[in-house]
Amino acid sequence: MVQAFEEISAADFFYRNRDIAGFTNPSRAIFSSIRELVENSLDASDQSRIPPEIYIRLSFEYEGSMKGSGEVKAEDESLFENGFRGTEPKVYRLRVADNGSGVPARHIPAAFGQVLFGSKYKLKQTRGTFGLGGTMALLYGQITTHKHALVKSSTGGARIYIYKIMVDIPRNRPIILDRKILLNKEGWRGTIVEFSLEGDYAKAMSRILEYLKQTALVNPYANIMFIDPKGRLYKFTRVTTQMPRPPKETKPHPYGVDVEAIQRLIRVTPCRNMVDFMRNHFHRVGEKTSHKFLEFAGIGKTINPRKLSRERIVRLVKMMKRFRNFLPPDASCLSPISEELLKAGILKELQPEFIAFCQRQPSTYSGHPFIVEVAIAYGGNIARKNDLVLYRFANRIPLLYDEASDVSWRIIKRINWRRYKVSLDMPIAILVHICSTKVPYKTVGKEFIADRPEVKREVLNGIREAARQLQRFLTKREHVERERKRLSTFSKYLPKIAQFSTELAGKKRPPDIKKLLWSVKKYEEK
Amino acid sequence: MVQAFEEISAADFFYRNRDIAGFTNPSRAIFSSIRELVENSLDASDQSRIPPEIYIRLSFEYEGSMKGSGEVKAEDESLFENGFRGTEPKVYRLRVADNGSGVPARHIPAAFGQVLFGSKYKLKQTRGTFGLGGTMALLYGQITTHKHALVKSSTGGARIYIYKIMVDIPRNRPIILDRKILLNKEGWRGTIVEFSLEGDYAKAMSRILEYLKQTALVNPYANIMFIDPKGRLYKFTRVTTQMPRPPKETKPHPYGVDVEAIQRLIRVTPCRNMVDFMRNHFHRVGEKTSHKFLEFAGIGKTINPRKLSRERIVRLVKMMKRFRNFLPPDASCLSPISEELLKAGILKELQPEFIAFCQRQPSTYSGHPFIVEVAIAYGGNIARKNDLVLYRFANRIPLLYDEASDVSWRIIKRINWRRYKVSLDMPIAILVHICSTKVPYKTVGKEFIADRPEVKREVLNGIREAARQLQRFLTKREHVERERKRLSTFSKYLPKIAQFSTELAGKKRPPDIKKLLWSVKKYEEK
Repeated sequence: MVQAFEEISAADFFYRNRDIAGFTNPSRAIFSSIRELVENSLDASDQSRIPPEIYIRLSFEYEGSMKGSGEVKAEDESLFENGFRGTEPKVYRLRVADNGSGVPARHIPAAFGQVLFGSKYKLKQTRGTFGLGGTMALLYGQITTHKHALVKSSTGGARIYIYKIMVDIPRNRPIILDRKILLNKEGWRGTIVEFSLEGDYAKAMSRILEYLKQTALVNPYANIMFIDPKGRLYKFTRVTTQMPRPPKETKPHPYGVDVEAIQRLIRVTPCRNMVDFMRNHFHRVGEKTSHKFLEFAGIGKTINPRKLSRERIVRLVKMMKRFRNFLPPDASCLSPISEELLKAGILKELQPEFIAFCQRQPSTYSGHPFIVEVAIAYGGNIARKNDLVLYRFANRIPLLYDEASDVSWRIIKRINWRRYKVSLDMPIAILVHICSTKVPYKTVGKEFIADRPEVKREVLNGIREAARQLQRFLTKREHVERERKRLSTFSKYLPKIAQFSTELAGKKRPPDIKKLLWSVKKYEEK
Repeated sequence: MVQAFEEISAADFFYRNRDIAGFTNPSRAIFSSIRELVENSLDASDQSRIPPEIYIRLSFEYEGSMKGSGEVKAEDESLFENGFRGTEPKVYRLRVADNGSGVPARHIPAAFGQVLFGSKYKLKQTRGTFGLGGTMALLYGQITTHKHALVKSSTGGARIYIYKIMVDIPRNRPIILDRKILLNKEGWRGTIVEFSLEGDYAKAMSRILEYLKQTALVNPYANIMFIDPKGRLYKFTRVTTQMPRPPKETKPHPYGVDVEAIQRLIRVTPCRNMVDFMRNHFHRVGEKTSHKFLEFAGIGKTINPRKLSRERIVRLVKMMKRFRNFLPPDASCLSPISEELLKAGILKELQPEFIAFCQRQPSTYSGHPFIVEVAIAYGGNIARKNDLVLYRFANRIPLLYDEASDVSWRIIKRINWRRYKVSLDMPIAILVHICSTKVPYKTVGKEFIADRPEVKREVLNGIREAARQLQRFLTKREHVERERKRLSTFSKYLPKIAQFSTELAGKKRPPDIKKLLWSVKKYEEK
């Protein structure tokens, strides 16, 4: 039996395996398409430093092709919330417009018509990371409707470009069907993407709205407008025009590099000796640290990096991980949400009695700095669910699917909450935000975060710190409650005793018991 | 601010995002490496039709480089079962040898040194599907140890080839460092892969052994031998030399194709009219069905497929999904485990009191036929865990990670088990096996299966059918139990009454009460 070996393109790979990119079924596909394009838009306005205006319109085009299935009984309808029954998927037209940085004309076709092509393969905190999302949405539209997509973009220069494109899947290359150039008289800047796709909006609706709500919560400087196929308008208005500190590109931290990364640096370095090599290519390595490290590692300072042998490269990586005196990664390249913003968002959505917050010190995994922020909210509008509620965010985007596999959920499940006076029937919501130059997603669909040990540790410690704050609050509330009861007993009986004693002593005015009550108080209520 | 756009290779993509391929941390990496190579070996012997002999040796090479972290208190050690603390990762040498079909010499470098290259991009039930696993293992070894890998293979011809290879990650091409050719005097056939990698065997051990145990359970015709770094030998011996019916390659079923698939067929078809086109390229479409369908779809039978307009192609796909008279996909291309084999495996491992089994009719999703098999076992060695135990298999390999995101787990969690007289504290284990020409994994690491609606339906119906069998067993056992109690009451008092009556009547011999007892029996015990 002869085996036929073949090579497939990256686009073909994701076409064959669209499940792994979040395009599992008609409802997920419509959710993922909106999500990927909104995240591109938000990234594009981080780039331009102008508060984003994002306009999303989903309109009904015609009846779709996929068929439902008959075998399920009515009793089990609740099992199929992700949808294959009842409504047939329909064909929709999706348009997402933003006022972001725009895509340079020569890159438009590849940016939307080729997978593994993009501007996000940098050490920088961005929402997109895989260089896949936009193209996957268009590709899904193409394989379900066989129609081209329209991309209109300008970087604010003299021209606006409009491309009609499709994806050549076997070759992973864009096909340009048509190109128009308009004069940009009004100095417009931004990107508009429009295409048709099969989907199931009825099933996807609640997730899409939840996604937009949570996105608005952690991006309070964005205006987001969504018009759904029934013409309903959902508007998420900005509460500030102040943009957060923009994320910066950074170099790899020495604790996180592998031999492949070193080799790539060696291939391009202009440095002629190891001191310069260390200083120029690594995050937080200065002249002094460079000298100290090379002595520690036993690697000659004057060696030309290009002449390093294999064994030396392995040793270099090994010693980088062992050396204790590298400074921790600098958080200035990251843009966490911050206590103020996160608390404001939580207050707006949940109106809790109490919020604990903890921003962990920056840490690093595989050369990528990251910061974990945790908030725990108690009471207010948080529902009692016999379980804790978890909101997950990564680089300012909400993660909605596959919670149970997420590192944060797994940690929450294994913490001994009784130690923090928490029982699962309390109204408690936990928010975990991880920002990093590279979020360790476990699926290309960006649904959940892998169990990287360093991330696990930071999330755990963040939750514990916030939980301790909550514990102090709960303990105090308990004391206050006990004290209130004790005082209420005193204030119930003291006046009677005072009155009785007064009568017994034959006096007219009972003594002032306020002072007495005050003296038995143990805690002051605030 | 100028954005730099760039294109990266598929190997570079998976190097940057190794989390999504199952190489998250040193313990997962060592698990995934063994798993991927074992699955390649099993596939290679399906190919050669000779019962597999798989030999795995993991040996300690030297201390690794990654560092632990100090911040965790002892109290929380249990939280870190996936390991980052305590033991530093070490460098191991892994060797996996099989007697499978072997890889043709000219394909060896690409098969192990290039991602998205392989022999498994067919419509055929295989364990590997992504053309990634073997190369990812070698790539992980390379970036942690900077060493080449050795691949020795022969297809049983006159020569044995030995390649020293590395992966050129930025270009996604193999680098051949050396090649040796030996004379194959003894007619050896098979493949041996050997390379070094950083890992944490102490943390990975229990999963590796569980994986091998479950693999042996569903591949009872395989001999698997594993020598661990401490020299301990684990041997899983075959119980049969009979190989299962081999999976066959098949054509796409019309219910599952999209416009891209049609276009690809049009590009290569030798057919000059639509009747032939339908007949030759689709699963279960014969002359008659072809005619009927084309009439239903309103597409001319004599049209040359290459002349189909875009709108016609979309219509063709749409009508394919609507046409009710296509035969369901033929199961003969699939190789399910079968009732006999699955029950034997369960009996061996769990010794339950009762096993319910259900093999569903073949179904299809996106053009891929699949079969779901479900077994529910009760009692015996199954632990009472206050939750049901789930074993998941896909194309005869066990899935161990991320259970909570798997379609089967989600269905089990939402079934109303009381309806089947099942309470969660009963000792119950559920086994779900899905075999398909393409398993809809959601991660490239093959950890869990996506919520494809068609798959969801089959798994649900399979579990319900098996659950009904279990219900009948439980109901019967309950009756038998009640009857046993009732009879035991009779048999306790009847002799006394008989004796008393005998004495009262002044007789010597009490009457025979056996007949009497028999007459009150409602059910016969078997």
